[in-house]
Amino acid sequence: MTVDEQESQGLGDTPSEELDELVGAAAEAARGLVDSRPSDRAGWLEHLATRLDAAAEELVPLAAQETHLGLDRLQGELKRTTFQLQLFAEILRDGSFLQATIDHADPAWPMGARPDLRRMLRPIGPVAVYAASNFPFAFSVAGGDTASALAAGCSVLLKANPSHPELSWVTGAHVSDALAEAGAPDGIFAVVRGFETGIALVKDPRIRAASFTGSLRGGRALFDLAVSRPEPIPFYGELGSVNPAFVTPDAGAHRADDVASGFVASMSLGNGQFCTKPGLLFVPAGAGLEGRVAALAGERPAAPMLSEHIRSGYAEALAQLAQRPGVRVIAGQASPEGDPAPIILATTVSDLLADSEALTQECFGPAALMVSYRSEDELLAAAQVFEGQLTATIHSSGQEPVTSALLDVLSERVGRVVWNGWPTGVSVTYAQHHGGPYPATTSVQTTSVGTAAIDRFLRPVTYQGAPDDVLPPALKEHNPWRLPRRVDGVLQQVS
Amino acid sequence: MTVDEQESQGLGDTPSEELDELVGAAAEAARGLVDSRPSDRAGWLEHLATRLDAAAEELVPLAAQETHLGLDRLQGELKRTTFQLQLFAEILRDGSFLQATIDHADPAWPMGARPDLRRMLRPIGPVAVYAASNFPFAFSVAGGDTASALAAGCSVLLKANPSHPELSWVTGAHVSDALAEAGAPDGIFAVVRGFETGIALVKDPRIRAASFTGSLRGGRALFDLAVSRPEPIPFYGELGSVNPAFVTPDAGAHRADDVASGFVASMSLGNGQFCTKPGLLFVPAGAGLEGRVAALAGERPAAPMLSEHIRSGYAEALAQLAQRPGVRVIAGQASPEGDPAPIILATTVSDLLADSEALTQECFGPAALMVSYRSEDELLAAAQVFEGQLTATIHSSGQEPVTSALLDVLSERVGRVVWNGWPTGVSVTYAQHHGGPYPATTSVQTTSVGTAAIDRFLRPVTYQGAPDDVLPPALKEHNPWRLPRRVDGVLQQVS
Repeated sequence: MTVDEQESQGLGDTPSEELDELVGAAAEAARGLVDSRPSDRAGWLEHLATRLDAAAEELVPLAAQETHLGLDRLQGELKRTTFQLQLFAEILRDGSFLQATIDHADPAWPMGARPDLRRMLRPIGPVAVYAASNFPFAFSVAGGDTASALAAGCSVLLKANPSHPELSWVTGAHVSDALAEAGAPDGIFAVVRGFETGIALVKDPRIRAASFTGSLRGGRALFDLAVSRPEPIPFYGELGSVNPAFVTPDAGAHRADDVASGFVASMSLGNGQFCTKPGLLFVPAGAGLEGRVAALAGERPAAPMLSEHIRSGYAEALAQLAQRPGVRVIAGQASPEGDPAPIILATTVSDLLADSEALTQECFGPAALMVSYRSEDELLAAAQVFEGQLTATIHSSGQEPVTSALLDVLSERVGRVVWNGWPTGVSVTYAQHHGGPYPATTSVQTTSVGTAAIDRFLRPVTYQGAPDDVLPPALKEHNPWRLPRRVDGVLQQVS
Repeated sequence: MTVDEQESQGLGDTPSEELDELVGAAAEAARGLVDSRPSDRAGWLEHLATRLDAAAEELVPLAAQETHLGLDRLQGELKRTTFQLQLFAEILRDGSFLQATIDHADPAWPMGARPDLRRMLRPIGPVAVYAASNFPFAFSVAGGDTASALAAGCSVLLKANPSHPELSWVTGAHVSDALAEAGAPDGIFAVVRGFETGIALVKDPRIRAASFTGSLRGGRALFDLAVSRPEPIPFYGELGSVNPAFVTPDAGAHRADDVASGFVASMSLGNGQFCTKPGLLFVPAGAGLEGRVAALAGERPAAPMLSEHIRSGYAEALAQLAQRPGVRVIAGQASPEGDPAPIILATTVSDLLADSEALTQECFGPAALMVSYRSEDELLAAAQVFEGQLTATIHSSGQEPVTSALLDVLSERVGRVVWNGWPTGVSVTYAQHHGGPYPATTSVQTTSVGTAAIDRFLRPVTYQGAPDDVLPPALKEHNPWRLPRRVDGVLQQVS
């Protein structure tokens, strides 16, 4: 959701005196959190997960009411959210995330005598998290950014998304209460609201990092503020993606039904309101995929969008797309009244290449563009049109020579390559990467999903020649926290 | 060295057509480098190290002539430079840097069935490296940024520093020749020159990251360009630091001679032209440290600066510092003619607190400010004056209660805390961190020294559901490169 959109909904800002107090409390909490033991923070996150699970009967209907998403989807999303908290608790107990590294003094070090050097990661400080509209649990108040920042030992100022204000407020109260019950310090977490509040947060010198999930326009505006501060801060913005999917000739010939049904299910999931929605599908001309996709999409029901603002933005983007030269509507309506149903547009690679900027814009809702290609050269040329993407998908038998070239082109442009599957449904795991080159994100090296998300909120400090009794526990010689550590260049695990 | 300084020396720019070709070749090389095996890159770096070592008799005198630094220092710096290449070769053979992570498909994954997900780090793409003036080897053409970028598998456009143009050119020829001899692809490395060239590089859409060592003004200007591109890129700037050192009452009482001699040696090393020079020394009033330091500093000889531009900039900064209220010169001259000798200024914490911005400015040359404190409260108040620093130093017995508070305050502000030592002489190791909050650097989470420097030039990609035969070797099931990998959450080492 854009900052404009938030303003348009007239959600009142957190009063500036209150915001100042909350940021001050977060800064004070951050100083204490530096010394918190990761296993203690694990306990906080687990307690929060338990409490949110227990509140499902309160939270899920409230989310449904404010977002128009289905109860099943929301129950699944809440489960994902509490699982995420539990997975970060596991990471905290493992301790690898601290990257504790010890080099003992070595007079024979080849470049000259080496002093004792010990490095670990520390929390970066108070973090501003901007909640998303489209995941009222998993990318909102108690979502992945909050979980990873708390796991890192940072305090969090959570800028609520105005599309689910009541849920944000109620969830925030659960988070604050659970953290307090579990023994976390005062000031570690607060929910704030409003357009001006969001701007004030990213400019506040006490805030040391920010994360955001939403539109390119809103995210870039906040990024620009973050990097133009007197002291720039890291800004982790996940902004948008059209997630192109490519069906090779072989897959088109042999798996057309699978591809068509999987594609329609993925592009219409959550009424198309996913950052990983496959917005373009490249298909071999003449394989009959358009007909299959159009038939399946045409059976799908209309459904309400997350908000009126999102609905009108979608309708406008869709109308523009449908008017481009060479673009045909093959299922659904380009100018829906009321709730939209899935719509499929179609064009050719040559038309796409002639109008690539307009035809590769994100259209946030249940629309997708099928693009037919006539040769492998056209397929590869089309793949090179894209800027940074969260994902790209390949449907292939894997035996075709074009696949390897396609994989190379896409690996250069995206954060995740999906093979014979679909990009929606981002699993929370150790190996997940939810990121990608700009404009998919403002930070090509980080992820907002999966355990590596904790890295965003940590920074290294090295201690040189410090005596054992002043070193942090993670770096003391006898390893009181039993951490995996790299010692004199060799990784040492704890049995 | 600032971009202004470069311009002032009138060093000609690389012609724009030539620059365009070089960046094009670097982009082409980068595409091939993605598939290069880390152990092959290790061989390239080792060959480069061997060749540079063999060229010492050519390179060191040339460096001495252009920088006025001593032969011993330059020999040591070249050794450090070639060691750095060798250490990255070791990292490449170890393979941990790829962070290969494999999650097998798991239908019982608690948040819902998990697909097969495999993540690794890939090279970020062509990198622009801006060489420093004050380390003609270690932070210049074949220095740490070049070594870490090549190690990561990136091509490098090296913007030469105009203070040692001939050395840059000759070293660059050795780098290009050595890489070619070792089998690296064409276009992997080139030296470019000139103020406008530096600007063009950071704005070129084919450049995917930049690193810089130099002044706050020049570095911030390039950072601003990097983040205001249509597609912002990571900009790793190491900009400046005053590296405060704090002597506790106990250390002042019992180790005054050691502290005084160590401090004078460190602040005058390389004629004060180090980014880690301790520029402020906080001492207990009445411990007699001023007299000791002044006596030792007064014995030090004058020496030429790296360039006339740096000399005049130093003279100007020093004159401004010496004129501030409450600042006294206790050794040396505030307005030297010709080559400067070390100068020690002195003030009190109360004067510092009243004029902290002016008194904590970096003065790049052989000057330092001693600041006397009358109480532990004053000591702690002074420590809180500082913005981000590369280093801070504590001299303490470790038994004093104030030490722990001081350590907390400094750990929040700096990249490296030095205990009973001095910050100059940054060892290249696994645990080293040469970074820190702004304005020490523009990127609080990264280091430009030590093996972790490679992280700056890598980005993650995850493959979902991909068959083994299309996966990169690092992620294939049978682990052909014998990498340490995290598999289903558990780190697996290779024996």
